[in-house]
Amino acid sequence: MKVQGFTFSTVEAAIKKPGRNDFALIFSNVPAVSAAVFTTSTVKAAPVLVSQEHIANGRAQALIVNSGNANACTGESGMQVARETTRLVAHELGIDSTAVQICSTGVIGVQMPMERIRTAIPALVTGLASGTLEDVAHAIMTTDTFPKMVTRSGSIDGIQYTIAGVAKGAGMIMPNMATMLSFIITDAAVEPLFLQEAFKNAVDQSFNVITVDGDMSTNDTCVIMANGMAENRIITKDTPAGSAFESLLNETLLSLAKQIVKDGEGATKFVEIRVRGAKNSADAKRTAMAIANSSLVKTAFFGQDANWGRIFAAVGYSGAEVDQSRLSLSFDDVCMAKNGIFAGGDAEVRGTEVLKQKEFTVSVDLGLGSGTASVYTSDLTHEYISINADYRS
Amino acid sequence: MKVQGFTFSTVEAAIKKPGRNDFALIFSNVPAVSAAVFTTSTVKAAPVLVSQEHIANGRAQALIVNSGNANACTGESGMQVARETTRLVAHELGIDSTAVQICSTGVIGVQMPMERIRTAIPALVTGLASGTLEDVAHAIMTTDTFPKMVTRSGSIDGIQYTIAGVAKGAGMIMPNMATMLSFIITDAAVEPLFLQEAFKNAVDQSFNVITVDGDMSTNDTCVIMANGMAENRIITKDTPAGSAFESLLNETLLSLAKQIVKDGEGATKFVEIRVRGAKNSADAKRTAMAIANSSLVKTAFFGQDANWGRIFAAVGYSGAEVDQSRLSLSFDDVCMAKNGIFAGGDAEVRGTEVLKQKEFTVSVDLGLGSGTASVYTSDLTHEYISINADYRS
Repeated sequence: MKVQGFTFSTVEAAIKKPGRNDFALIFSNVPAVSAAVFTTSTVKAAPVLVSQEHIANGRAQALIVNSGNANACTGESGMQVARETTRLVAHELGIDSTAVQICSTGVIGVQMPMERIRTAIPALVTGLASGTLEDVAHAIMTTDTFPKMVTRSGSIDGIQYTIAGVAKGAGMIMPNMATMLSFIITDAAVEPLFLQEAFKNAVDQSFNVITVDGDMSTNDTCVIMANGMAENRIITKDTPAGSAFESLLNETLLSLAKQIVKDGEGATKFVEIRVRGAKNSADAKRTAMAIANSSLVKTAFFGQDANWGRIFAAVGYSGAEVDQSRLSLSFDDVCMAKNGIFAGGDAEVRGTEVLKQKEFTVSVDLGLGSGTASVYTSDLTHEYISINADYRS
Repeated sequence: MKVQGFTFSTVEAAIKKPGRNDFALIFSNVPAVSAAVFTTSTVKAAPVLVSQEHIANGRAQALIVNSGNANACTGESGMQVARETTRLVAHELGIDSTAVQICSTGVIGVQMPMERIRTAIPALVTGLASGTLEDVAHAIMTTDTFPKMVTRSGSIDGIQYTIAGVAKGAGMIMPNMATMLSFIITDAAVEPLFLQEAFKNAVDQSFNVITVDGDMSTNDTCVIMANGMAENRIITKDTPAGSAFESLLNETLLSLAKQIVKDGEGATKFVEIRVRGAKNSADAKRTAMAIANSSLVKTAFFGQDANWGRIFAAVGYSGAEVDQSRLSLSFDDVCMAKNGIFAGGDAEVRGTEVLKQKEFTVSVDLGLGSGTASVYTSDLTHEYISINADYRS
């Protein structure tokens, strides 16, 4: 499946060290309707600040990204580098620099090697003839152990369109290799405001419900570009075509988000935390996040210990309204606790069997209302410590 | 230094397994003015609920505590066990059961062995003749590697009084061996409302500013008993004697809190996170806690990696008001970053030297206002994972 009108390129700019393609470009032959979601951290990397400015008009035609250096905590020089990079790329492509989105991922607090970036840009643009989206997925990897990519297609009035995306790992990765990045491209024609809204919702239901270590990066960015090259009737809100597009977009982002959790640093388990019966959906999410971020719970998952008490402890400090006598909990279909106490019987043995699997679901029912939430997380392992304790190298 | 009028006892009740004294009693010969601070978790252990009821009158004369079982998530049976235990102890001591505070620490979700508790109580009371506070410090240990104890003395009008305390580890310890417990006793005569206020403040400045893994337990409890046996003039608020007592109390609790961090599960570093220049003190604490609880920051401490970028990232998502161009950071007296960017020079080398120490201070200045906060934390190590991933045994 090809996303019409998009080309790709990657080159080696040796931003941190030589030996791999660490600089990538996504280009749309025509200006695309675009939307982006950025880190809510108050400490934002320079490329985030520049991309925020550029996306204000809801348009983008190119996306430039590097790994190896986050260009975060780099002050005014960092801003100059980010601006100059977009200017140079725009110049080579013959477009306006505000049509260029820019992202960086890597070490924090180190100035960017502007000379090497400047040198690499012409080759990067020339390379658009021959690159692939998969090349981009590779170029943005830091401690990721596999590239993350997905493609989905839909149709409207018999005209097929495609949504494709790439992402790189969450989990604040490697010795300050921060950042979750994801780039989504589609050849569908989509009404701009609807695209914005649908994209924001899709991010909320995917990248915002995964957690590896609870840390948020200075560089987190998700960008979508819809260039309309499929020449479909423009997709709008509150229509069957709009709903179908939304579903497809949600699927695309959720697939990428799950790939990120599966590749969480040192992770050996993929766990869905499903909360229901909360007073409201905010309480449900609060509860699910408290469980998903608890070091004790995550370490128990690694130890394959059916330790439901630690999960109830996390529920207790989540801040959600809780009546402990109404709490129940299951590992997959094994009920471990009901009405706040141990379910008895062979629950311990059967629950432990569930936790021996590589993937399982923890379901918590607060028994109070109709609020639900799902969050995806991994376990906390020796390997996580090893990856993150190593000196930045 | 002896705390007049208090006696102690410990016995083996084999609550989880035999082989150590796991059941302890602190008794005051006369009713004591008392105050307590309990976990704010909505999932509270049975002994917490019973102690909360009993402390309502501001009096206590005995404190009974067991390790090996938290009596948490045990429903109505757990409540009955906690109530019956206080009744039996009160009966043996010839006091009212509301004068008995009760605490438990250990595994969550397992019913208490009431028969063994019942059997142990008479010997526990008889033992009051010969026990010591240090015996109690030992009996309440779970994964703690050393008993935590402190004694301080002060005087008023030439009359000496003593404050002593014991505590057991934070860090949600061992496979669901939850709980931070601390018991403070003093022979000073203190005005009841002032004691409550001073104790709450002291807890806020000690146990509430330490963090090992960010998890809060279902059983956390701090109790103080002041029995007045020193026969001093009653210590009241807003007097020199009151201030002196407060200082001594703060010192006592802070010493115990620091001992807990030093004994944090698997910890190899003791780190003070000092924040200043925050908009207000709430922002300062928020910032310090975000840093102290970041898995990435704590893993960098373990790796002795002078990774100030990760600390700025944690500052960024703390929720505090931040202007990244005003941030600065030091490891001890080595300035690592100023005005949001790397300080340059040999900061990297010198900062790394600081992190090689067993104890150091991270100072962050937000450059916005006069809010300050200090938080104490440990590193996150392989040993933490090992301790917590082991099956409950």
